[in-house]
Amino acid sequence: MPHEPKPGRVRLVGAGPGPADLLTLRALRAVEGAEALLYDALVSDEVVALAPAHCLKIQTGKRAGRTSMKQETINRLMLRLARRGLNVVRLKGGDPSIFGRVGEEAAYLAVHGIETEVTPGVTAACAAAAQFNFPLTHRREARRVVFTTARLEAGALQMDWSAAADPQATLAIYMGGAAAEQVAARLIEAGRASATPAAAIESAGSPQARLRRGTLADLARLVEDGAGGPVLLIVGEVASLAHAGEILDELGAAEARRA
Amino acid sequence: MPHEPKPGRVRLVGAGPGPADLLTLRALRAVEGAEALLYDALVSDEVVALAPAHCLKIQTGKRAGRTSMKQETINRLMLRLARRGLNVVRLKGGDPSIFGRVGEEAAYLAVHGIETEVTPGVTAACAAAAQFNFPLTHRREARRVVFTTARLEAGALQMDWSAAADPQATLAIYMGGAAAEQVAARLIEAGRASATPAAAIESAGSPQARLRRGTLADLARLVEDGAGGPVLLIVGEVASLAHAGEILDELGAAEARRA
Repeated sequence: MPHEPKPGRVRLVGAGPGPADLLTLRALRAVEGAEALLYDALVSDEVVALAPAHCLKIQTGKRAGRTSMKQETINRLMLRLARRGLNVVRLKGGDPSIFGRVGEEAAYLAVHGIETEVTPGVTAACAAAAQFNFPLTHRREARRVVFTTARLEAGALQMDWSAAADPQATLAIYMGGAAAEQVAARLIEAGRASATPAAAIESAGSPQARLRRGTLADLARLVEDGAGGPVLLIVGEVASLAHAGEILDELGAAEARRA
Repeated sequence: MPHEPKPGRVRLVGAGPGPADLLTLRALRAVEGAEALLYDALVSDEVVALAPAHCLKIQTGKRAGRTSMKQETINRLMLRLARRGLNVVRLKGGDPSIFGRVGEEAAYLAVHGIETEVTPGVTAACAAAAQFNFPLTHRREARRVVFTTARLEAGALQMDWSAAADPQATLAIYMGGAAAEQVAARLIEAGRASATPAAAIESAGSPQARLRRGTLADLARLVEDGAGGPVLLIVGEVASLAHAGEILDELGAAEARRA
């Protein structure tokens, strides 16, 4: 275990898309060695359960009706725990460097003299692609992939779609469930063909993942009747390849049996 | 081990950025259970060594002066080995869905009746961000991240820079070493400020990783005197945060001692 942290440091760790076997070994060791674990709503129970019994476990994200902690509260909590000399692990769904606010948390801790170390993880778009058998890039058809978000701020879509019309770019739109209709409208307005293949993947990477496939024009319909998990939208030629293969179904069944 | 493949199937597995502890547990189990392993040049010796002694190990990528196999040769080899009933693992550096040609390989095998299963991995940009303490996205400054490549085809840069001028996009340019000068020129031409922070990271994620930081105008200089490893270019405000922290240096030293 070369990655044993010293007291007074915080590890910002990517938990991947949910299943414990999609943690990296480095992340697993960090969780197993944690004395204080602060985890987001997107981190699965299966992963949280890997922390030792004596570990202080604090959920920071909204789940089961509880409200989220404010970022400032999370920052202060990490600082206080690190100053007590605990091995603090801040666990985030997916990869911490992609829409994980790792920059803000690391900067806050650095200002207060606490060193941080980041452990990368499998981000949701990669997990979705693997699970549903489509690549994010593909020769000729998809030379680029753009990771973006589609959060509504005060009811409006805060977003620049400058890259959207590029037919050779795959768009992977994180947290895209609520704004799917606006996203589709804006993309079509920006010049992306309404017949462009699209997919909505809920809870990508987990055994409960749901894939719906269609076109950009259908996007709003693809996110209907979800189970409340995070929704990743994929827009681009590669989305036409997305499917749940036989092997995957077997894995799903195997995992369901284990659970 | 719920992910034991049946004979006659091929697993396309992401090996992550190099260190064995950045494999996912699922990838580790796949490698440990492999009867035939076909691995790219970007896969580290440390990871290849995890395959069992009886496993047939075939390097498909250029390394140490040997030439790469043609894609068609790799495809046929996977098919032949799968038809023999072996557990075939096709191991790729990083994540197989990002610039990994996983779509082509899966399509070839599907046409020939062989099922594939993809295991995601940590892609180089996420590994680089974790290792050098910068996020790929950051509130306000970096709302998107674009993963692209900068391969020269017949000496020219085949690339569309439509998203390049967007000051709120981080660009992660894979395989960017040879074309760094052209990339910088094209980005500046497209309207990206020449003072935009930039970084060149060689062998991202590995203990031998090298970070050089500057601005977009410096890009060609940042890739000089490399050791021949793959080069990831990062262009965008987040690159100004990149640094090798104290913790990282300790990890590097610990890994060097282990080796």
